[in-house]
Formats: sequence, C-alpha cells, structure tokens
Amino acid sequence: MEKYYVSYNKIHSIMKDLSQQIIESGFEPDYIVAIGTGGFIPARMLKTFINRPILTVGIAYYDLNDNIMDEPNIIQWIDDPDKKLKGKKILLVDEVDDSRATIGFCLERLLTHKPLEIAVTVVHNKEKEKRGSIPPEIQKYFAGETMEDQWICYPWDADEILEHENNC
Amino acid sequence: MEKYYVSYNKIHSIMKDLSQQIIESGFEPDYIVAIGTGGFIPARMLKTFINRPILTVGIAYYDLNDNIMDEPNIIQWIDDPDKKLKGKKILLVDEVDDSRATIGFCLERLLTHKPLEIAVTVVHNKEKEKRGSIPPEIQKYFAGETMEDQWICYPWDADEILEHENNC
Repeated sequence: MEKYYVSYNKIHSIMKDLSQQIIESGFEPDYIVAIGTGGFIPARMLKTFINRPILTVGIAYYDLNDNIMDEPNIIQWIDDPDKKLKGKKILLVDEVDDSRATIGFCLERLLTHKPLEIAVTVVHNKEKEKRGSIPPEIQKYFAGETMEDQWICYPWDADEILEHENNC
Repeated sequence: MEKYYVSYNKIHSIMKDLSQQIIESGFEPDYIVAIGTGGFIPARMLKTFINRPILTVGIAYYDLNDNIMDEPNIIQWIDDPDKKLKGKKILLVDEVDDSRATIGFCLERLLTHKPLEIAVTVVHNKEKEKRGSIPPEIQKYFAGETMEDQWICYPWDADEILEHENNC
C-alpha cells in the first residue's frame, strides 16, 4: 500500500483550518475530548484555535503485553463522566477515521453520559468500507483531509523525525 | 524577557534523547502519565520510543471562564486510580518545569495512589526559584534541556506554524 507521510507542521495547519470550519458551523464545544493516543497531538493543536479544556479517553486494540484484541481495551475513561458531560457539547478528536471502529465505540459510550451534542473531527478520513458506524444522534462531522485508503505515516511515529520530514 | 522558539521536530528529537536516558537509567515504566495540556504532545512523542500506555491528568490554573486561580483546577484525573497505579512504575511527563507548582501538585496526588515508583521527565527545566517541590520519594528526574528563565514558545501555541518555524 502507498505510504503518505505527513509532517507536524502540516497537521498543525490542518487543525487551524478545521477550527475555522467548526467555528463557522456554529458549534461551540464545552469540552474537547481527545481519543488517545492518536488524537492527543491533533487535539492539543486544536486547543490553540478553540480554547476549551481537553478531556481524554484512551482506547487500544491491544493489551498490556501488546497482544491484539477483538474488543477495545479502555486504557482510561473520563472520571465522573455523568457529572462532567451531561448537557454539554463535546468535540471528539481523533487522528484518523479508518475502520471507524474506535470512533464508533467512543461515540456510543459518550452518548450514555447524555451530552447535549457531540461533533466529530478527524485529521484524515479514509474513503473505505467502515466496520464501525456513527450513531444518528451525531450530525456534525469535520475531516481535515478525505482520501483513498493509504498507509498514513504520522510524524509522532517516526524514529528519525528529519528522515520522516524528507519523505513528506 | 527573551523568547525561545522551539519546533515540533526539535521536541521530537529531544524526546528520543530523553527516552535513551530513561532506558539507560534502568527505569521501566508501566504507564506514562501525561500532564495536560502541555504534556500531551511530548508524552505521545515519547511513546514511540518507550511504548507504554498513556494515562492523562488535566491541570489548569484557570477556570472554565478563563479566570486565573490560586489553586489548581483538576480538569481530569485518572479513573479508578488506586487500582491502576498501586505498585506500578509511572513516568510523569510535562513540557516544562517552570515554577514546579503543577508537577509538585501532581506528584503529591499520584503518590496517594501508592505507586511503586515515579520518575519525572520534562522537555525543559528552567533554572529558577521553584514555588513547588519534588517530594523526596522521587529519585529520578530527566530534563531534555536545562536553561535560564526564558519565555519558551511551544509550536502547539503558534497561530501560524510556518511563521513560528522561521523564528526557531
């Protein structure tokens, strides 16, 4: 599969563009919720342009011994979530909407805490068959770039960042 | 005060160097704990080199209306912390050890969950009088760069990232 290398600066610029789309849509979140670990960096970049507190949830499809699992492993959830999220507007952030499994899982679970509204934003959305789905309650979805199915190489996964940069 | 601009790529390289120092010290964390929001990006970079799950804590010295407060506002804490942290080795990550107030606060609170050991790592440590302190239980401290008191401009706070890059 073709590899697509993306730099930190490019993702920063995408998050700025996304923030403008979100602001123009009229959506004013109470909280940014970052899906970890892929959403941590995009969410922090976004906070510069939409200055709301960041909460995080950690989801992994592997256990502590790096065994791959069918069901997601919840590394961390929001503490006291009903109190924090009930009636609130949430902007959920992840790096990529690939199979949609993680995002779908998080949305279902966040909805149990009865937020007023959730909007989704991702740096990249891959146009492909999705295993997960976005619940009908979710009406706002913002993608920085929509693309064919490719292997995206994120800068934070680079062993040598200057080598990575040369491939961007 | 003099401004010191730092790029994403530079911080990525610092986190790689830090990971080597940490590994050479023999410290093998069970969890990375990122202090939000400044520690989110360095912690995710570090995970590429020390692949442990990231938990986050969110600490702010302002309230939801951006009023500055004397006491830290806990935006998020670890859910079920006694179960997760008791007997575990934690690598606490933040971007800067400035007044030491946030780091000191987090360390005191993390120690109540009875971890086996906590090590601290920061991208930058400023040599200045510290308001906070590191409890005596903490024996390992790793700083990527130690510097005089300067105004550090982190890339994630940049409005225009290419302008920021030109200042680095």
